[in-house]
Amino acid sequence: MYEDSVPDTVRQFMAERDWQQFHTPENLAKSISIEAAELLECFQWGDADLESAKDELADVLTYCMLLADKLELDPDTIILEKLAKTREKYPVDKARGTSVKYDQL
Amino acid sequence: MYEDSVPDTVRQFMAERDWQQFHTPENLAKSISIEAAELLECFQWGDADLESAKDELADVLTYCMLLADKLELDPDTIILEKLAKTREKYPVDKARGTSVKYDQL
Amino acid sequence: MYEDSVPDTVRQFMAERDWQQFHTPENLAKSISIEAAELLECFQWGDADLESAKDELADVLTYCMLLADKLELDPDTIILEKLAKTREKYPVDKARGTSVKYDQL
Amino acid sequence: MYEDSVPDTVRQFMAERDWQQFHTPENLAKSISIEAAELLECFQWGDADLESAKDELADVLTYCMLLADKLELDPDTIILEKLAKTREKYPVDKARGTSVKYDQL
Repeated sequence: MYEDSVPDTVRQFMAERDWQQFHTPENLAKSISIEAAELLECFQWGDADLESAKDELADVLTYCMLLADKLELDPDTIILEKLAKTREKYPVDKARGTSVKYDQL
Repeated sequence: MYEDSVPDTVRQFMAERDWQQFHTPENLAKSISIEAAELLECFQWGDADLESAKDELADVLTYCMLLADKLELDPDTIILEKLAKTREKYPVDKARGTSVKYDQL
Repeated sequence: MYEDSVPDTVRQFMAERDWQQFHTPENLAKSISIEAAELLECFQWGDADLESAKDELADVLTYCMLLADKLELDPDTIILEKLAKTREKYPVDKARGTSVKYDQL
Repeated sequence: MYEDSVPDTVRQFMAERDWQQFHTPENLAKSISIEAAELLECFQWGDADLESAKDELADVLTYCMLLADKLELDPDTIILEKLAKTREKYPVDKARGTSVKYDQL
């Protein structure tokens, strides 16, 4: 049995609705910020609405997937490449156990 | 040869620095919003800094992965579950080719 | 002695640099989100960097002023008009002492 | 006839509902980001919903006012103080007509 990958399912969902026309990189970047704020809203007053957080996190991830697609980036690859840079900026011996920024380490 | 998964690599990176202590769901939600805005900054004035966008998208994805981890959610599962809800709110025959919100369709 | 109002001072600052060309309503809305996230960053890990928060709050306010200008809105007027709407959605007897949303009151 | 200032009206609105208890600096910073994203949503797909933008801008301004209050900051003063810093970072002769960041001027 053939099963579509998640990115394929998302792409097909968008194609059926002819929504790719709205998905410029800039509009997707705005959408990621908008959905990220809806996720933050689940924690606005110190309480936590985890059921809603699940849906909003899914929205952020979906728009991230669409932007990666649009920019022809592989999510796993860019995560690992960025992690390599962060590794240099935050060496274990300096960064261990602290949340201060690299320029103040 | 054994190769760590991307989530495992990220988890190990955080563990080495003892940073999980900062990763409450709320702090991660804030971090996703913060990184999403840094991504948006790559498109602030209509121009596009795609090289920086790659790194910022990676940051958003990394914090999303950490939040999913923390909430014990599988990214692919929640994306598909949310897509099913969106499918109902935006039926193809009504939503095709338009960017208006479901409550105005 | 004549002293410019704050909005006049901000307008003059922008005019001297010929920056109004970048200040479309959409670019200003993006900028408000970007600066709001920099403000949020002062509270990212539960600590609070209040000295930086002051500057970032100033940036949010400045872009809000520019957007109000662009849309020909008076800040005080729209604050009071919105407050009137919120007053109806959150009557004192129902909303007192709770942070739940109006549709769940 | 006595007329309350806008900040006084907002303060009274909050006091009547006993909402100041929720208004920690961090919660207000989150709220500013959340409302800023709702403002951005008015420009999400390139169209512009200016009627909604008015209300969302009012929400951003209201939370900014509450945060300034909480941190005992005068909005006009911090705007002018920040503008003085920006003036140094972006001298007219270098910054005129360009949107590039100060570290690339």
